[in-house]
Parts: sequence; structure tokens; C-alpha cells
Amino acid sequence: MAAAGKRPTIADVARLAGVSPSAVSFAFNNRPGLSDETRARILSAAERVGWQPSRTARALSRGRAGALGLVLTREPELIGADPFFSTFIAGVESVLTARGHGLMLNVAAPAQEAATYRRLAADRRVDGVLITDLRVGDPRPALVTALRMPAVVVGDREFCGGLCSVDLDDRPAFAEAVDHLARLGHRRIAHVAGPAEFRHAQRRREAWAAALTAAGLPQGPVLTGGFSAEGGARATRELLALTPRPTAVVYANDLSAIAGIAVAQEAGFAVPGDLSVVGYDDTPLAAYTHPRLTTARADIHRWGAVAAQTLHTVIERGTAPHVALDPSTLTLRESTGPAPGR
Amino acid sequence: MAAAGKRPTIADVARLAGVSPSAVSFAFNNRPGLSDETRARILSAAERVGWQPSRTARALSRGRAGALGLVLTREPELIGADPFFSTFIAGVESVLTARGHGLMLNVAAPAQEAATYRRLAADRRVDGVLITDLRVGDPRPALVTALRMPAVVVGDREFCGGLCSVDLDDRPAFAEAVDHLARLGHRRIAHVAGPAEFRHAQRRREAWAAALTAAGLPQGPVLTGGFSAEGGARATRELLALTPRPTAVVYANDLSAIAGIAVAQEAGFAVPGDLSVVGYDDTPLAAYTHPRLTTARADIHRWGAVAAQTLHTVIERGTAPHVALDPSTLTLRESTGPAPGR
Repeated sequence: MAAAGKRPTIADVARLAGVSPSAVSFAFNNRPGLSDETRARILSAAERVGWQPSRTARALSRGRAGALGLVLTREPELIGADPFFSTFIAGVESVLTARGHGLMLNVAAPAQEAATYRRLAADRRVDGVLITDLRVGDPRPALVTALRMPAVVVGDREFCGGLCSVDLDDRPAFAEAVDHLARLGHRRIAHVAGPAEFRHAQRRREAWAAALTAAGLPQGPVLTGGFSAEGGARATRELLALTPRPTAVVYANDLSAIAGIAVAQEAGFAVPGDLSVVGYDDTPLAAYTHPRLTTARADIHRWGAVAAQTLHTVIERGTAPHVALDPSTLTLRESTGPAPGR
Repeated sequence: MAAAGKRPTIADVARLAGVSPSAVSFAFNNRPGLSDETRARILSAAERVGWQPSRTARALSRGRAGALGLVLTREPELIGADPFFSTFIAGVESVLTARGHGLMLNVAAPAQEAATYRRLAADRRVDGVLITDLRVGDPRPALVTALRMPAVVVGDREFCGGLCSVDLDDRPAFAEAVDHLARLGHRRIAHVAGPAEFRHAQRRREAWAAALTAAGLPQGPVLTGGFSAEGGARATRELLALTPRPTAVVYANDLSAIAGIAVAQEAGFAVPGDLSVVGYDDTPLAAYTHPRLTTARADIHRWGAVAAQTLHTVIERGTAPHVALDPSTLTLRESTGPAPGR
């Protein structure tokens, strides 16, 4: 391994030119007070040691970092399991790349969350933050407001605490899913929900429940699947052991739904013959399960891009209009079919 | 939406205290040349406007950014599809979080790659970079060396261009997979490979081919599946149309293997009765397919953590030893079985 060369600093330039570091800074910022001879000596010294004023230094003098921040409040082990984040981040990056900006990604355990935002604010390493995974009683909108950090909530406008929000309504897809199942004759329709502390998990559950009422159907069983494959598998095993057994399950996401299909098949149930399955996300695998998964498509990449654009507007103008993206829509595939015995 | 408050700058403090911005900087860095009275006036002005010297400014004076960089050279749309990155990044973050450091994530189209590294170096926004997805003829080791950026190659030591490498050998798992299939009586074992420009895709293909030779078997067909569900599905359809048909397929990753199972079942082939399937990655869904997927487990999270630790060593000491992590190992599940007619 080659030893990494030490990078030149402004002090190296000053030493070589026989001036103070402030003089180097004056020379590069074209400020008055230096003789032409001194200025030339400084520029030549900088060239010789390979130094140039950094964007960071220039950003500091403008008060801008040229980066957005995203703090994920999850145990680091759990981020890898959720395909939402990599797609969302790819969308954010598609906007930042075009501007030559970066994304500062932080992962905080719940107990470290507030300290992480405070540090980002004190360090001025980001010009603003995106707030995802909005929780019930979320302290972050008030926190970033107190810290005077420009911020955009990626989620429900109703709970954005006075910040600008960029939302994508997932409720119509859950209403469509229940309606689709009701028309196929299903009367016992279960829900495998995400963790109750997340606003979007709660909103999906409420949309499922409201759609059952609208269809004149009784409320079905609800189990928590945690948005994970393992949680979806466990919940499905419990649902299949119920008497009477549900004939259809609406899952909060694809990961739990795909695991649900496998568990049902392993237990000898046909999908959709004995059990209809609906997911949410339309992840790349949803079109390549057997049977292929009925699920809802949400444009997560675009959500990331619009959130980044909106945060730039907030940073530049202090405010931006709320954005409501096109709601997700149901894609019918082969994992849903007529209720058994119909 | 509340208007975001404008953050105070060093200029605000200077104006209020009636001094130059340099004097403010002197006061906070305890440099001589200011009277006690002036120093007190500056500190009081800073408190009144809510300003404090930023970590960025302090990092600049020490020549450190307190952040690592990761440049993903893929079309942004393709990052979301690969579960490797979110798990790897979670591992990196587990180390950075403990240090109060951040990860600067950039996504570059291939044509913008070199410019992105140059900008990161010029801006001094990161203290070093992690190089993933090593390619055939990869220009990046030479580039970061020329830019004097501390760097660690996450991949094959043989192609790290004099940089420090942190590698996880995937070959033993492919050798194990072929050996396992040969013992089950398979003689026509195909491979669905990743994109040929990637070193790790090439290494997996070579390991598969060498294992066939070692088992005394003929070379099987190779198709490119692009590491994606869609590519895996397409390649599987082609393989199932061959005469003679392969009885087993070793895929370069789980995403393509899981899609392969679905495509085979959809075409009326039993897995593993007619076709044995092996993946690579042991993604969360691999234990929840039907049949459950035989695949290789690699500790990607640990790979990210060790890569970050190693890069910190390179940043601090200029160099670090190469690291070879525990190789991946095969996990036998139900997607592999005896060759048909055996």
C-alpha cells in the first residue's frame, strides 16, 4: 500500500511565501492590502505546493455547506433490509449530482437522534435536512425549527409541525386493494401492519380499516409485521392458524408480502386459490414472484428528487409550498383471485 | 410553513462587535494580539447573535473534514435495486456514528466519475474515500493516488493499484456450490453472471468455471443477468429453452436467483425437482422464498464497518495493512436437490 501523501494546507503556502495565512486568504479572495509582488509570490507558492482554496472555505464565507443531510433513526442493522431508502436516496442524489452537491448521511440510534441533529447544526456541514420516517409524537420538526435548520418533512402534511412537507398519499392504493378484494368475494381480509410508531404505517392501517367499512365488510385481524420479511412470515403463520381463516391479506409492504406468499405455500395453501396477497411498493422482485405480486406502485425515486428540490427552495428562499405527489396506484397481478368457494 | 431563520455568520458577530471577521476568529482561537476588552466584546456579541465557530472551520484549520466519501458510479436508478449498498452503508455508518463522523454519498454517471473525485479532493469535504464496485481497468486507484486522497479499495487486493484493500473472498462459496451440485448428480450446471466490467462478477464466474473443472464436469452455459431481478428472469428463460437443458443454475446474486425460481415455476418446472437454484448474498428474502434459497452468506455489514475503520487508519497513519475478511460460506436450503432422473 502506498502511503497517502499529506495534503497541503494554507499554512504550507504561507510558510513558503514568507507571509501569514491571512495574507494567503487575502490573495485568493482578491482583497486589497497586498502588493502585486507579494500576491504573485503567494500564488506561485500555492501552485508549487499544490494548494487551492477549498469549496469548504468558500462555502463558509458564504455560509453554505453545499450538502444536504439525512439522518436515519434506525438501528444500522435494519436499514439494509428496507429497499425504500436506497431508492429514495438515489432520487435525492439525482438532484444533488446535477448541482455538484453532496448528501451527508447519518445513522442515529433513537437515543442519539437529537444530539445528531444538534451536531449537524453546530457544525454547519449541511444546509438543510430531510426528515423521513415521521413518527407519532415526532420531536424532530420542533427540534430543527429551534435549531434554525432548513428542513423538509418527507411525509404527512398534517404532522409536519409547520415545516414544508413533500407527501405521497398511500391511502388510495389501500382503498383500491380492499375494494378489489371485496369485488372478488373476500369477506375476511386481514392486514399485516408496519411498526405502530410510524405515521405511514398508521395511515396505511387506517386506510385499510376505512375501506373495509366503506365496502360494508367487518374489520379483519391486524398483526404487526414490522416491514420485514421475517415479521411478515411470522404474522402470516399466525393468520393462517386463525379460525375462521382470512382469505386475503393486505400487507404494509412488499418485503413482508413476498415472505407471506412463501410461508403460505410452504404450509400447503395455494396463492391465490386459498389466500390472496397484496403488497405495497412494487419492488423489483414483485414482478418476479410466483405468482407475481399484486402491489401498489409509488414513485419513490421521484419522491427523493422532489424532496431534494424542495429543500433547496427552502434553503434559498426560506420557505416552499407543500407538495403532494401523485398517489400510489394498485397494479393487479396474479397473487389475488376469487375468494375460496366462490 | 415557517420561514427558516437565517443562520448567524462570523460577519454578523464582527459587525456587532465593531471588529473585523479575522479578529473574531482570533478571539475564538485564543490567538494573541487582542486586548482583553475586545476579546470580551467579541465573545459577548457571538453569544448575542447565537454564533459559534463551526466544526467545519475548526476542521479546516486542522485540515480535517470529519467525513468519509463514497462515490457510487451507477445510474442513480440502478442503486435502489441492489440490496448490497444499503447494508454496506449501514456497516460504514456503524463506525462513523460512534466517532461523530458523517458519510458523504455521491452518485456519478460514468462520464462524471473522475470529475466527482476531483471535486471531492478540491473541496476537502471528505478525509478519504471508499472505492467499491472495482472494474476491469478501473481508473480510480491511480486517480485518487494522483489527487493524494486517502483511499481504501473494497475489493480484490490484486487490482487495488497500490492502495490498501479490504476484501471478502466470494470464490470458496462458488466452489462449494458447484461441489454440492456435482455430488447431487448434476452435470449441466449453468451460471448467470453479473456485468462483465465488474471485477467481482468476473471473479465469481471464474470460481464457478474452475470448480466445474475440479469436479471433472464440462463447462456449462453462461448468461449475463446483470445482478438484477429482470436480468435474472431473462437469463433463466433462455437457459430453460436450451437443449440439453441445464439441471442447475448458479446465479451471481440472490436477486437474479429469486427471479429465476419464479420464472422456472411459471414455466412449469419444479424447483428443485427439475432445476436446482443457488444464489449469493443471503438477502433477507432468501430464507422466505418457496422453496427457500440455497445461497452464500457474506457479512456485508461487517465489510462496511471494517472498510471504514481501515480508511480511518489510512487517514491517520498514511497506510494500513490489507484486510482479508472471512470468506462467504454456502447455506444449504431447499432450492437445490438431486439431479432429475437420479
